[in-house]
Amino acid sequence: MKNIYIIGVGLIGGSLGLDIKKHDPKVKIFGIDHNENHLDEALQLNVIDAKATYEDLKNADLVILSIPVDAAVVEITKVLDLVSDNTLVMDVGSTKSEICKVVDGHPKRRNFLAAHPIAGTEFSGPKAAILGLFQNKTNIICEVEKTAFKLQEKALQLFMDLGMRIRYMNPEAHDIHIAYVSHLSHISSFMLGKTVIDKERNERDIFDMAGSGFASTVRLAKSSPEMWTPIFKQNKVNVLETLDEYIVNLKKFRDLIYDDDFDSIYLEMKNTNHIKEILNGIQ
Amino acid sequence: MKNIYIIGVGLIGGSLGLDIKKHDPKVKIFGIDHNENHLDEALQLNVIDAKATYEDLKNADLVILSIPVDAAVVEITKVLDLVSDNTLVMDVGSTKSEICKVVDGHPKRRNFLAAHPIAGTEFSGPKAAILGLFQNKTNIICEVEKTAFKLQEKALQLFMDLGMRIRYMNPEAHDIHIAYVSHLSHISSFMLGKTVIDKERNERDIFDMAGSGFASTVRLAKSSPEMWTPIFKQNKVNVLETLDEYIVNLKKFRDLIYDDDFDSIYLEMKNTNHIKEILNGIQ
Repeated sequence: MKNIYIIGVGLIGGSLGLDIKKHDPKVKIFGIDHNENHLDEALQLNVIDAKATYEDLKNADLVILSIPVDAAVVEITKVLDLVSDNTLVMDVGSTKSEICKVVDGHPKRRNFLAAHPIAGTEFSGPKAAILGLFQNKTNIICEVEKTAFKLQEKALQLFMDLGMRIRYMNPEAHDIHIAYVSHLSHISSFMLGKTVIDKERNERDIFDMAGSGFASTVRLAKSSPEMWTPIFKQNKVNVLETLDEYIVNLKKFRDLIYDDDFDSIYLEMKNTNHIKEILNGIQ
Repeated sequence: MKNIYIIGVGLIGGSLGLDIKKHDPKVKIFGIDHNENHLDEALQLNVIDAKATYEDLKNADLVILSIPVDAAVVEITKVLDLVSDNTLVMDVGSTKSEICKVVDGHPKRRNFLAAHPIAGTEFSGPKAAILGLFQNKTNIICEVEKTAFKLQEKALQLFMDLGMRIRYMNPEAHDIHIAYVSHLSHISSFMLGKTVIDKERNERDIFDMAGSGFASTVRLAKSSPEMWTPIFKQNKVNVLETLDEYIVNLKKFRDLIYDDDFDSIYLEMKNTNHIKEILNGIQ
């Protein structure tokens, strides 16, 4: 692959650019972004080699679509319309059902690979791009059988070069499970941040009392609303299910405290402690 | 100070022992613990120099009470009964109202200092003790005016030696604010862990999908139920207040998603994003 086009030069797109360039300095990375400042920043930071437009996509060996998921489902068909028969097009969004539905039946469906690298930070934009972000991270691929065999091979080689572990999953399973292990965490974090900010609005010094535990639980509340609003919209049904269960569990815990049933409070926490073993290997 | 007695040689007590010893190798650190294994471990790890019992407390220059808060309110009067007139006794618990009430009127009230170093990790026991844990951390001191002036001085010198920033606060204000910036985070984390574990009980591979964001929000769910149950019990009123507000906020967010009001979802997140500035300086 010589010519790689990244549409959306933010945290994920930018980090992919950096890693690909590091692995093969001969590739040329082109950036496309509706935010001209981001493109300039990406150029300055050597995240991309040059700016480009959709008209250039016909020259692409690989197109990476790394934009918010509501924009992705609109742009993907435009991109597929423009690329050559040998171009691999992949998205990296946090929801997979809708984009797989949108491309279904497209004449260039076999040029598309639906991917979700489970990597990132709470920051965004080209400045947030990090070299080595994908090392040892999981990359979930959906409907791999619908991608042309030769392009599958190219994609897998790329993911291997970047140090990722591959998991295959259907888009519906991806969206329900990711609601639990990612989307819910963002909501819990945002609402925790809101609850504390609302309470402590007039007491600025109070945050002096916050320690690393608080920082850890509200870290995701720094995330980009531009990226997360469309995720919650596209994955509405699954997100509502997880959120309802979370609220029920919190309500139960609240009632146990209210009823002075601290033996049960102890057990609730003890039974959840084995998250330790589950978390081994993450981070 | 020559002879320092640490009652409860866990994460906080053990870390204090390590730091004090590092700063002044001539002090002798004695450990008291109802868990004999912890005492042995603490000795092996050089967290303490020797084991001791309550009978030895008459020789203490400083006693640090670092045990769960329900035990602390029982032990504190026993300890004060046993120490000499010149001994400084401090607790380091995460609730301050009840212990301040318990010691009020005790003949040796002036020997006691109520402290809460905002430091720690999700781990526990002497193995969790870390050198330098308190560097640049906040230490909240309650009712400082009730401690003998000479002992206040000793305590402040110690905290300065360990690199801590001091904040003074009354016990009631401490307990309400710490419910927001610490206790609530633990509940949100435990219930997030529970929600995901319950859902994914039969799908072990699913945790492959979890990334660093999930790990960060559920980190506190590894915390010790032995320590946290009594905290929620002692700070019940404040914890219920924070938890009720958190549940209301989650429920509102849930209803906005349900009603497809994604403009408001966007605003809720945007308004909480300034947690970024608040978190600067923590961690």
